[in-house]
Amino acid sequence: MPSSAPLTGAQALVGTLADHGITACFANPGTSEMHAVTALDGEPRIRSILGLFEGVVSGAADGYARMCGNPAMTLLHLGSGYLNGGANIHNARRARSPMVNVIGDHATYHLANDAPLTSDIAAMAEPNSTWLRTAATPEDAGRMAAEAWQASLRAPAGPVSLILPADVAWLAGASIPERLTAPVRPGPDADAVERAARAVRAARNPALLMTGTALTGPGLRAARRLAGAGVRVLFEFFFPGLERGAGRYAPERMQYFAERVVQSLDGSDVLVLAEARPPVAFFAYPDHPCELTPDSCEVISLGGPDVDTTDCVVQLADALGTPDTGGAPVADLVMPDAPVGELTMQSIGLSISRHLPENAFVSDEAGTSGGPTWVATASAAPHDWMPLTGGALGQGLPVALGAAVAEPDRKGLCLVGDGAAMYTSQALWTMAREGADVVTVVFVNRSYRILNIELARTGAGAPGPTAQHLLSLSDPSIDFAALASSMGVPSTTATTAEGFDDALAAAFADDGPYLIAAEIA
Amino acid sequence: MPSSAPLTGAQALVGTLADHGITACFANPGTSEMHAVTALDGEPRIRSILGLFEGVVSGAADGYARMCGNPAMTLLHLGSGYLNGGANIHNARRARSPMVNVIGDHATYHLANDAPLTSDIAAMAEPNSTWLRTAATPEDAGRMAAEAWQASLRAPAGPVSLILPADVAWLAGASIPERLTAPVRPGPDADAVERAARAVRAARNPALLMTGTALTGPGLRAARRLAGAGVRVLFEFFFPGLERGAGRYAPERMQYFAERVVQSLDGSDVLVLAEARPPVAFFAYPDHPCELTPDSCEVISLGGPDVDTTDCVVQLADALGTPDTGGAPVADLVMPDAPVGELTMQSIGLSISRHLPENAFVSDEAGTSGGPTWVATASAAPHDWMPLTGGALGQGLPVALGAAVAEPDRKGLCLVGDGAAMYTSQALWTMAREGADVVTVVFVNRSYRILNIELARTGAGAPGPTAQHLLSLSDPSIDFAALASSMGVPSTTATTAEGFDDALAAAFADDGPYLIAAEIA
Repeated sequence: MPSSAPLTGAQALVGTLADHGITACFANPGTSEMHAVTALDGEPRIRSILGLFEGVVSGAADGYARMCGNPAMTLLHLGSGYLNGGANIHNARRARSPMVNVIGDHATYHLANDAPLTSDIAAMAEPNSTWLRTAATPEDAGRMAAEAWQASLRAPAGPVSLILPADVAWLAGASIPERLTAPVRPGPDADAVERAARAVRAARNPALLMTGTALTGPGLRAARRLAGAGVRVLFEFFFPGLERGAGRYAPERMQYFAERVVQSLDGSDVLVLAEARPPVAFFAYPDHPCELTPDSCEVISLGGPDVDTTDCVVQLADALGTPDTGGAPVADLVMPDAPVGELTMQSIGLSISRHLPENAFVSDEAGTSGGPTWVATASAAPHDWMPLTGGALGQGLPVALGAAVAEPDRKGLCLVGDGAAMYTSQALWTMAREGADVVTVVFVNRSYRILNIELARTGAGAPGPTAQHLLSLSDPSIDFAALASSMGVPSTTATTAEGFDDALAAAFADDGPYLIAAEIA
Repeated sequence: MPSSAPLTGAQALVGTLADHGITACFANPGTSEMHAVTALDGEPRIRSILGLFEGVVSGAADGYARMCGNPAMTLLHLGSGYLNGGANIHNARRARSPMVNVIGDHATYHLANDAPLTSDIAAMAEPNSTWLRTAATPEDAGRMAAEAWQASLRAPAGPVSLILPADVAWLAGASIPERLTAPVRPGPDADAVERAARAVRAARNPALLMTGTALTGPGLRAARRLAGAGVRVLFEFFFPGLERGAGRYAPERMQYFAERVVQSLDGSDVLVLAEARPPVAFFAYPDHPCELTPDSCEVISLGGPDVDTTDCVVQLADALGTPDTGGAPVADLVMPDAPVGELTMQSIGLSISRHLPENAFVSDEAGTSGGPTWVATASAAPHDWMPLTGGALGQGLPVALGAAVAEPDRKGLCLVGDGAAMYTSQALWTMAREGADVVTVVFVNRSYRILNIELARTGAGAPGPTAQHLLSLSDPSIDFAALASSMGVPSTTATTAEGFDDALAAAFADDGPYLIAAEIA
């Protein structure tokens, strides 16, 4: 609530963010953030959670936002804390996850002394911030906190940076401002909808490519209507979150590899975009195209992240006159038999499909290993799926942690490759500490398998011993079960399909975090 | 050697760096670096070493440079790889460690497509790079690699960034240029030396504050002459490396906490600086000064990192007419008795002093726990000491790894706090893989103890449950011995002084990495 009491800058900042509905702060503070820490001490509306590395902190805030739609606060220690959190802030920018990063800095008058931890925080943070300010006085703190909250939700939603110098945090004279309102995304331009509807009607093979909020409830219901009317409905390979599983309409996921995208879109004559962008290659390859839309295909955008994406899809369905319920079929619940024999990506997919709890969330950073699970769970109990978004490894475990904080009553599943798991394994410790109800499956194939594939695809030549050495995770093998246990997460190693199936069932039956190291054949 | 063969950009880059004496590449490559990986495959002069997280990669390059004075190459995957390595690049900048960071990027023509991993690498890397270029064509690659090598060694030495787009790496038409010469740092300005000598002669309590290369062989010998002539010789609290132990002259380390620096310098009337800067507080505190030189003290600089710091000290000693050998006493070898009873910071210091192998290197990121070891080892066998430099946690383990790569015939000791160890614990895996001869001691006190001290010092108030939660590493306790073993590093946990002493002796007697989790009372 507004206050003109003699608050410190830190108290005004924390109180303002709490007033705006922020309920979690993921933090790794240092000396320059001590007043923010004690301000959090006095703010019961915010749950403060320690990460032992800032990539955990920022990735958890991403997972929190992807699950509940609201930003969390992070508390980061100067430029180096920002850098450590930076890769997952990049991922969050690509997920369009709102996030209020509060970055402590030296006291304003101390910056010129260039003490060892001094760096140009604003320059480093700017590229991955949709909004960035530095509070220069305690009076700034509350007002800028409110603006930061609002900016994080303004299209395109994403991570914002508020730099809080230590003296601004500790000085009194700050106050809590009136609440700002959440930005509202307008509907699509009526002309664009009409143009798209006309083109779809005239097309032989019309397709819709969507992402963002269209991948949840109302958007999917509208997309289903379109699919029933003959529109091929696709969604981007990387997306913030998708509601899927039994009873839900399943649009088609865009391919990952560029040549498969080209193959898939061959013959499409109209491509309507809802928040999505025309498909491009994830990486460039010698002598292969990067822009993947067929030359003969007309592309019509209903709007980018600045408009209400769900409304785009609804209005297109309305304009086409499709019935306002029903449409393409929804998935039936399929309960596969328990797999037996070798532990493979496929058998893991079957086990997960069997045991995935209803209304679970899935954080997927399993890279090359996760495909069969994606396929198998199309007919599992209804669940939410959150993949890697920005391509920077280390997102999966922290996202699962943050999602569990946002939705403590739901079960979580984290699928992670061994390479990715080693980036931010510290998330396991926070899962243990906070009782995060997440079962983590590490696909242990002892390599950056995607890079072994990419090495050939880029035409870089046959890998000699040095290249093999740089792409392998063997020698020594990592014992992921022991790694998890060392941080307080109970764990086991599975080496057979039966063993994995039993372990997974038991893990979901219990509360709290658990890790299964899946040694796949 | 120079070549006009039809090399790819990646081959020219790697060959040029090898020609300039670079012998190690610490890497975590991705798809955009595959041609660099196969170029390394064909370059036997460079040892390629995988880190499972880029903070390991950059920290190891720092340790390599601090040990041998030459830059290593790193290979980083786009902007997110740079961000992950960024905190230790910050630390390396503060250590003035030369380092050639090669940052892969998307193909030049693909950048405009803004694929998910695209980011503004140059903007993010600029603040911690002493030199930054982007190779725009294959013809740039060799020339810029040579320039990068030279720039990394040019005062102030430090990390340089060479951005290598994927197409520049894979296209042919590159060549290897003539070798450039290493920059030479000139001696100090003669007037500055004369002014300093006059001031020292006239002073009652003259002091010299130095850092950088003056902390090794010839610099320390000259400093010893000055000390013998009545100059108080100090060195900065954070420094790249110091030769110390039995048989060596031990100058005085500057205090860490600001008020102790003020106390220590009280009465100094002349402060001569050699590469060092006038002392400032590491952090600002309410109502405490940040600039710590006494008002009445005359400050005379012999030069910054742009001049030859050793030569500064030698010339000052010459100008003062001090004898050109001898001076203050050197440390005698002291072999303490084996400690017994409780395992404490003090008993650990005694054990390390007893067992530290001659010519060992020590990487110290033990924070509040390391002080007694620093004191106890003043009379241990001669060794090199490398502390944290930039204040960003996670430097200790990677620096020890890189130092072991640079000096495989020397024994290494890594002292690390439990908080710091969790930042870049992946370094243990690379230590195991590469057979790094490093004994790591983790001081397990289950807290960010420095922050518990700083909380009081900043006047942020008494810590309530939330603040305590954010500064504690307990609940759950981390089993560091199990963590190390999970990554292939043999380990033990010590809980008594006798147990630690035995474990340390055994660890140094063996080759290869070992970790002792020291549960201190």
